[in-house]
Amino acid sequence: MTNRPALPRIGMVGGGQLARMTHQAAVSLGLSLRVLAESPEDGAALVTGDVDVGAPDDQSAVLRFAKGCDVVTFDHEHVPTALIQAVEQTATPVRPGSSALLYAQDKLAQRRRLTELGIAVPEFAPVTTIADVSAFAETHGWPVVLKAVRGGYDGRGVWMLSEPPTSLPEVDLYVEQRVSLVHELAIQVARRPSGEMRTWPVVETVQQDGICVETIAPAPRLSPALATDAERLARQLAEELDVTGCLAVELFEAPGGLVVNELAMRPHNSGHWTIEGAVTSQFEQHLRAVADWPLGDTSAQAPVTVMVNFLGAEHTDLVTGLPAALEAVPEAHVHLYGKAPRPGRKLGHVTVLGHDVAETRQRAQLAVAALRGES
Amino acid sequence: MTNRPALPRIGMVGGGQLARMTHQAAVSLGLSLRVLAESPEDGAALVTGDVDVGAPDDQSAVLRFAKGCDVVTFDHEHVPTALIQAVEQTATPVRPGSSALLYAQDKLAQRRRLTELGIAVPEFAPVTTIADVSAFAETHGWPVVLKAVRGGYDGRGVWMLSEPPTSLPEVDLYVEQRVSLVHELAIQVARRPSGEMRTWPVVETVQQDGICVETIAPAPRLSPALATDAERLARQLAEELDVTGCLAVELFEAPGGLVVNELAMRPHNSGHWTIEGAVTSQFEQHLRAVADWPLGDTSAQAPVTVMVNFLGAEHTDLVTGLPAALEAVPEAHVHLYGKAPRPGRKLGHVTVLGHDVAETRQRAQLAVAALRGES
Repeated sequence: MTNRPALPRIGMVGGGQLARMTHQAAVSLGLSLRVLAESPEDGAALVTGDVDVGAPDDQSAVLRFAKGCDVVTFDHEHVPTALIQAVEQTATPVRPGSSALLYAQDKLAQRRRLTELGIAVPEFAPVTTIADVSAFAETHGWPVVLKAVRGGYDGRGVWMLSEPPTSLPEVDLYVEQRVSLVHELAIQVARRPSGEMRTWPVVETVQQDGICVETIAPAPRLSPALATDAERLARQLAEELDVTGCLAVELFEAPGGLVVNELAMRPHNSGHWTIEGAVTSQFEQHLRAVADWPLGDTSAQAPVTVMVNFLGAEHTDLVTGLPAALEAVPEAHVHLYGKAPRPGRKLGHVTVLGHDVAETRQRAQLAVAALRGES
Repeated sequence: MTNRPALPRIGMVGGGQLARMTHQAAVSLGLSLRVLAESPEDGAALVTGDVDVGAPDDQSAVLRFAKGCDVVTFDHEHVPTALIQAVEQTATPVRPGSSALLYAQDKLAQRRRLTELGIAVPEFAPVTTIADVSAFAETHGWPVVLKAVRGGYDGRGVWMLSEPPTSLPEVDLYVEQRVSLVHELAIQVARRPSGEMRTWPVVETVQQDGICVETIAPAPRLSPALATDAERLARQLAEELDVTGCLAVELFEAPGGLVVNELAMRPHNSGHWTIEGAVTSQFEQHLRAVADWPLGDTSAQAPVTVMVNFLGAEHTDLVTGLPAALEAVPEAHVHLYGKAPRPGRKLGHVTVLGHDVAETRQRAQLAVAALRGES
């Protein structure tokens, strides 16, 4: 006997900060996220009671986990396609499905598919030898970007090359032209199995060493025409690839228009600003989409919302850094992910709502500096 | 070995919706609320991993629970004073302390203390017999309000009398004058052990059968002078009673000014609007206050925020009601407490931000009607 209402049990493979924040949203909807974490010390596993421990590439663990769920979704792209297909053979729906998720997992397949769809991507070619890289660069010019076909994120699996490399990493690779860009942008869209879609305002992202360190919403220097293009692109991609849940599209604003950089089919760092900055957050929307419930309003709550990532520094100590940040910026929304500090580790983020871009950025950066122990 | 940062472990006695929403706020601050729940099916126990099961009046359970916490706080007033004092004899701080909490637990003691402080309360007198009630009414006029000294809430422990009763409930009682009021209001203040205080805007509350069914923030019909009075009153009370954490003051706006109705020293239903409607929610602020961390900005996020409680109706079914509400009002913030529907049971609340009081109320009420299965 239980007194729980019979709402769906949504399971998320992966127990990192995305699952952690999805759980917070789940609680409001009367749910409790079920999490498949690699360790009981994972960010999401620390804060929810419904935790299964297992690796995302362990077939028996994933199948056992899925059996206890009404729908399965993901906080990363590391579940092998064959394993997702095995879950799809069971009674439990998987959202997004393996045939969509492939395009967030296999970047070469994604480049080919987007080219077929007539969507602009950087010039690219698969490579297996140094000679292949050089041949590509002779046609398109140095520098070029060498990328792992699978598994790269946050600057990992991406190498900027301004001359032929002396060796190649031993993974499947492709090379692409370095886009000379004006700004980096991102747009998110959520889509239900029944087809309903909602997009959030386009954001500008600030990157350092291949890691998104900041987002500004809405993108302050974007023309209305390009904002419309970005929205149309996101909707087209979600529909053509049959995405369910959230889709994040990272974009280059190039002199000739928008070029797709990366796709992610889950809540995404570029959408953390939506927790306070939009009427419906990406985390709640992802749950609503995978449950096939009506989607929420995605309007911005303030003229400007800035999200700054909190990466650990040499002397970061949360016991002193957290109160220092709260003191320095009383209007800051601090989000910590339950991780022990380590230099360069993504430990959390800070969101500030405001009216002026420069001032709001400065306030959010100030809070993060205090968290890092730098103020 | 653990990789958790050494942030304080905050324990909350009571596992209801207040603890549930406090846990959501705790997760953002990098914490995980430790909960002493009466049942593993309690609202908070369903969504957190750090749950101890025990009754709030069981001394060994409460002492064992407190031992595992760096600070103890409460989601209700049902822990006996002697038991709180026993915890205070240990190394674990209790916030608010027993000497403050007494005035939220024992309404007669509160009426006496507030009178000493020169704060307006309704005329009152302790009663033990029907003759006492009649004598009070002869002096102050019918109707009178008979109240339990301890344990009443949400309309329980409160009896409106327009004539002498035929019998009295067998609990400690007092009687008070019925205040002829203009509006009902509430104000919240948070206070740290080190003395820092922050108040939120005054809200108007709409009551039905002694239950708060709706709050409108900021109170739309309140004069600036009375708003200032309310703020001064809340600060005075928090300071004089040495409250730590959140203090909610329910007020009558009477023709002669403000009269204190009730006090609660915890997150309170009249502050649920702050989750989306204020920069810092009452739940996060309560944690910051009891951890003795700097308090957050309490400004309103929108011109109007309306919170409507969701009470179960005869045919309430969340499986159909939740999607219906999400569909009907895409901008609604729905909060469900993980409870099985039962007529009259507080199952959740809905918050809507807007610009116009009447329209915002109508939208929030529409979402709740859909949740109840009435639309």
